[in-house]
Amino acid sequence: MNRILFEPGEIAEGVAAFGGVRAEHVRNVLHGEVGQVLKTGEVNGKIGTGEILEVGETVRVRVRHEAEPLPPWVDLVLAPPRPRILKRLLPQLAALGVGRIFLVGAQKVERDFWGATLLKEENCRPLLVDGLMQGCVSTALPTVETRRSFRRFVTDELDALFPTGTRLVAHPGREGMRDEGWGRRDGGWGMRDGGRLVLAIGPEGGWTDEEVASLEAHGFVRYSLGPRILRTDTATVALLARLMPPETRTGVLV
Amino acid sequence: MNRILFEPGEIAEGVAAFGGVRAEHVRNVLHGEVGQVLKTGEVNGKIGTGEILEVGETVRVRVRHEAEPLPPWVDLVLAPPRPRILKRLLPQLAALGVGRIFLVGAQKVERDFWGATLLKEENCRPLLVDGLMQGCVSTALPTVETRRSFRRFVTDELDALFPTGTRLVAHPGREGMRDEGWGRRDGGWGMRDGGRLVLAIGPEGGWTDEEVASLEAHGFVRYSLGPRILRTDTATVALLARLMPPETRTGVLV
Repeated sequence: MNRILFEPGEIAEGVAAFGGVRAEHVRNVLHGEVGQVLKTGEVNGKIGTGEILEVGETVRVRVRHEAEPLPPWVDLVLAPPRPRILKRLLPQLAALGVGRIFLVGAQKVERDFWGATLLKEENCRPLLVDGLMQGCVSTALPTVETRRSFRRFVTDELDALFPTGTRLVAHPGREGMRDEGWGRRDGGWGMRDGGRLVLAIGPEGGWTDEEVASLEAHGFVRYSLGPRILRTDTATVALLARLMPPETRTGVLV
Repeated sequence: MNRILFEPGEIAEGVAAFGGVRAEHVRNVLHGEVGQVLKTGEVNGKIGTGEILEVGETVRVRVRHEAEPLPPWVDLVLAPPRPRILKRLLPQLAALGVGRIFLVGAQKVERDFWGATLLKEENCRPLLVDGLMQGCVSTALPTVETRRSFRRFVTDELDALFPTGTRLVAHPGREGMRDEGWGRRDGGWGMRDGGRLVLAIGPEGGWTDEEVASLEAHGFVRYSLGPRILRTDTATVALLARLMPPETRTGVLV
């Protein structure tokens, strides 16, 4: 918890009052005292500082949120891993700067995934907020949507959802699709037209050839980390780290 | 399990016989039949193929192991995370190509870590072999050693352990130590003298200023992924992915 974030309704007249895990963190980890200044911010809002007014069961801080957080830089089309793995992955995605997450049916996704209670918005949200508080520099809560039909998603929705931006499909360990300098030779991750990167990551068994062909027909370029084959959760973090643009805006952060 | 690895003692006269999880994988995931050819290899040895001779409780394959695996490309000096996290991390480190892992005491490492049963060699080994079988291209079993004294490790052992190679210390989210082109601008991760990269990664609360200064005095260069602060397990995978050299040797792999 490197920055404490508040929901909009938690702030009244410039003062945030909160209990629970965040208050525990202030008491036990930060050893908060009256007058101490914390890094704070608002979910989907600005960031800044909070000066402690009171430490008890409830903690009260006077907030000044005037700085812009870093915006998300990538959207994911993700064939969902098992719920246990996804649960671990969601905070990491928020911390790494993912904007929208589309969990899309692929042939090798286990059918019983779609009933997972994790997929309810109220269950995802705390995990994502945790990730934002870990990452410290973003407040934009990633959106999570499910699409069971891969075909319908790709043919009917893709172009409207991602009108601009580079599209990459991760496809590990095969010939001719290795990292050829994305995110390296050109000093960035190849964003050509100002849109956000879209990265499609398949299920544990990989995309089928048909799925890759369909994505390629819709402008996705194959991308691979090299010959090492990683589990999808490891691969997702690794791909995002590899493609992450260098940030030049830290000067404005507080 | 993208490549089945055998311990040296499991192969006799060119035939490997095995039960347990690997045999289950052959039966249930690969739907193995007599004559089918699998990707196989030997722990700390060569890789190649195995032709199925028999599928039952025990599986028998005739192996041809003639190709060189990819060698490790990085060693880690790691302030150990909690055992539960380390347990999850070890297979990922093996899959990502780590050679030697030194778990080194840092001020913010929890003291009770050092009693963890995970640290016994017989408990690490199966996790590391799993990671090699996942990664598919390496067979060199990472070594895991513990050093409780950071100071003694850095002053007495470091130069003998890592006589050549670039030394980096990960230090997140602070000014002036951001990714400045390592692994990007020069098309590689800056290995200057043919030695392996050594990467030092601190505990959840970070290295102390003294620890960073001590590492810098011993030739470590600060490295950061940028302003986003990641949990150490996420950061470890992200750092390795970011620094991973492009592999050009897949042509020889089978």
